[in-house]
Amino acid sequence: MDLEQYVAKIPNFPKKGIVFLDITPILENKDAFSYATKEILNYAKKIGANKIISPEARGFMVGSPVAAMGNLGFIPVRKPGKLPRETISEEYDLEYGSNILSIHKDAINKDDKVLIVDDLLATGGTVKACAKLVEKLGAKVVGCAFYIVLTDLNGLEVLKDYNIYSLMQLSEKI
Amino acid sequence: MDLEQYVAKIPNFPKKGIVFLDITPILENKDAFSYATKEILNYAKKIGANKIISPEARGFMVGSPVAAMGNLGFIPVRKPGKLPRETISEEYDLEYGSNILSIHKDAINKDDKVLIVDDLLATGGTVKACAKLVEKLGAKVVGCAFYIVLTDLNGLEVLKDYNIYSLMQLSEKI
Repeated sequence: MDLEQYVAKIPNFPKKGIVFLDITPILENKDAFSYATKEILNYAKKIGANKIISPEARGFMVGSPVAAMGNLGFIPVRKPGKLPRETISEEYDLEYGSNILSIHKDAINKDDKVLIVDDLLATGGTVKACAKLVEKLGAKVVGCAFYIVLTDLNGLEVLKDYNIYSLMQLSEKI
Repeated sequence: MDLEQYVAKIPNFPKKGIVFLDITPILENKDAFSYATKEILNYAKKIGANKIISPEARGFMVGSPVAAMGNLGFIPVRKPGKLPRETISEEYDLEYGSNILSIHKDAINKDDKVLIVDDLLATGGTVKACAKLVEKLGAKVVGCAFYIVLTDLNGLEVLKDYNIYSLMQLSEKI
């Protein structure tokens, strides 16, 4: 299936000179969403993942279906204050400022093989922070899967120590 | 399956006298997550839904898997500024202040039969706003499904015009 036809390209959003790649038309189309989920699930099975983690909020829409369909556990990674049980956190740099992500401490254990799933790989900062959270809890990141890898940025370099899978490789340049 | 064993009850979160009902242990458990998703999918099929919508962010984790597993479309409802294409919005009152939710205008059409899915029905304000967004776009809300209906609040009364389905009915009182 040609998934790229379901990626909306929004020029100059959120700022000038950038094309925002919007994956919500994939989710809206029953066949495209089911197909994309199954493709990532096939990868999850191939690498032996038993848990899926995704960062909020778009990541939830692409990662949690893979888990439910594949009979795997799903663990959300959220901004501080959103998860009610005991958490561990990881801070990482953004273009301007920094961000913190948290995960429930009891959600991952040493034997887990974790696949990180997100909609789009850009700079890789968010996913790298997710990987560090998993590793702090003693588990292994067996791979990172995306609907889209942006070829303009250095996300693949930032995640060079991990197995990467993507459904599409696209550019955000006009 | 007794899903209630996978609901974490957090006393005095986010404020004193309230027990926060945390559904993330359901998601973390592969069998519980798969079971909960299938139960809501069975309801979606029974009422003839062709699209699932959910409000951010916890709603994404419970609604999108139902769509992907059932070969249905999934449409996110988000806070303003998060959705890049043309949206319509609905404002609703909270205990203190108000909130606005948006949906992509082209994501729903007149023939759609929409099931709204969220983790927990409390006051009903969020889901009522979701229903109004669907109706503004000319489509029909065929039902609202939840992991948990809180029996302490008046959510069921607020949503009395709609079909309601839930996996559990629980109290948030200590």
